[in-house]
Amino acid sequence: MPRYKLTLEYDGTPFVGWQKQDNGPSVQAALETAIRKFSGETVTTTAAGRTDAGVHALGQVVHFDLSKEWAPAKIRDALNFHLQPDPIAVIDAEAVPADFNARLSAIERAYLYRILNRRAPPTIERGHVWHVPHPLDADAMHDAAQVLVGHHDFTTFRASICQARSPVKTLDQLDVSRVGDEIHVRARARSFLHHQVRNMVGTLKLVGDGKWSRADVEKALAARDRAKGGPTAPAEGLYLVGVKYRSDG
Amino acid sequence: MPRYKLTLEYDGTPFVGWQKQDNGPSVQAALETAIRKFSGETVTTTAAGRTDAGVHALGQVVHFDLSKEWAPAKIRDALNFHLQPDPIAVIDAEAVPADFNARLSAIERAYLYRILNRRAPPTIERGHVWHVPHPLDADAMHDAAQVLVGHHDFTTFRASICQARSPVKTLDQLDVSRVGDEIHVRARARSFLHHQVRNMVGTLKLVGDGKWSRADVEKALAARDRAKGGPTAPAEGLYLVGVKYRSDG
Repeated sequence: MPRYKLTLEYDGTPFVGWQKQDNGPSVQAALETAIRKFSGETVTTTAAGRTDAGVHALGQVVHFDLSKEWAPAKIRDALNFHLQPDPIAVIDAEAVPADFNARLSAIERAYLYRILNRRAPPTIERGHVWHVPHPLDADAMHDAAQVLVGHHDFTTFRASICQARSPVKTLDQLDVSRVGDEIHVRARARSFLHHQVRNMVGTLKLVGDGKWSRADVEKALAARDRAKGGPTAPAEGLYLVGVKYRSDG
Repeated sequence: MPRYKLTLEYDGTPFVGWQKQDNGPSVQAALETAIRKFSGETVTTTAAGRTDAGVHALGQVVHFDLSKEWAPAKIRDALNFHLQPDPIAVIDAEAVPADFNARLSAIERAYLYRILNRRAPPTIERGHVWHVPHPLDADAMHDAAQVLVGHHDFTTFRASICQARSPVKTLDQLDVSRVGDEIHVRARARSFLHHQVRNMVGTLKLVGDGKWSRADVEKALAARDRAKGGPTAPAEGLYLVGVKYRSDG
């Protein structure tokens, strides 16, 4: 049974998230419907990152099986046709070995969080950035972010509904930089806890505000208590940028 | 009577264009309504570029007069409050001399045209790029674009409804470059004819396709005949980036 890997881009705004749910349209349901329309087969798709409602993807990775073999370019084009008008696009499709698993085989996930840091509200980027109208100190945010890089118990930054077995994760990168009137937070790790990036960004924003110091972030991390962390940054600024696999070489 | 200059950003998607019209919502009408709401005064605003339906602005410049004096920061914030939920934002407001005219005092206008040049349709950037699915040769487009730079009769690239007195303009820059999966066309001139940028982009796209050569662009320009030019590129890829004034120094 041939297995296929897709790289997806989507605008998370109209969706309840990646995962199929009863309460509204999901990326997964839209994709599985499009797969059924072109192939006639009913499949279950597995994604590398189960993005929440409103979270975007530039490079979500998904796998699924079909009984029939198709040219990957044909799958890509047929899905892009059937996915319209949903804001979901297949950037790439490829045939993969049967033991490839979009979720379990992933060795790195990369996220970008975009803060629009200017007085005026977003227009063209509405729904695609977190608007923070007062000036944030990006350098102080970057400095404090380094406290979180490494192997830690991230309970302070973990959603209460998180289903991960362990709150211990290794964060490989957490960089904060100013790009024009935006502040970009880039995070890389093998895997993340539920809401981890948004909770880290919400905490770093307190540092950018001048309300928290680097030492406050250290204390919050050490507390292993969600109540000691900053608020959850809104979904609309978050992007799953890409996922790496050992086979990427 | 104090005169004010605004720098505006907007998403052109929901508007019939800058100019007030009977057939739908315009940026100008939304702005004049917001000015009336905060100041109680009914004014007419003048813009540097009368952007068409669907065309976006990163740095449109507008002037208007009020009988009362206001702190520019107050005007900016009050307008940003009253403009909601329209996707229009005041990036900057300043008091200017009474002889400043957003349209007539402008010495340079800069436009950006974004082509999304990949197989997959746009998702996050939908409505903000022209999607061309087959590969375009950006280098050939840039080379051919240089034919158009300089002092020329641009009749071939002028909309039939254009009201400019003369079709002769000086194009200071027309650069084409690849930026990731996008092709960006950047144009600068003191002023442009109606649809000039979109008609030039539509023509350069034929070069990118391999259908036209640099010599074909030369012939089209020399023909001084709109029928000899390429088609008009769609509005959704076009951005008025900024406007320069002598007073900018």
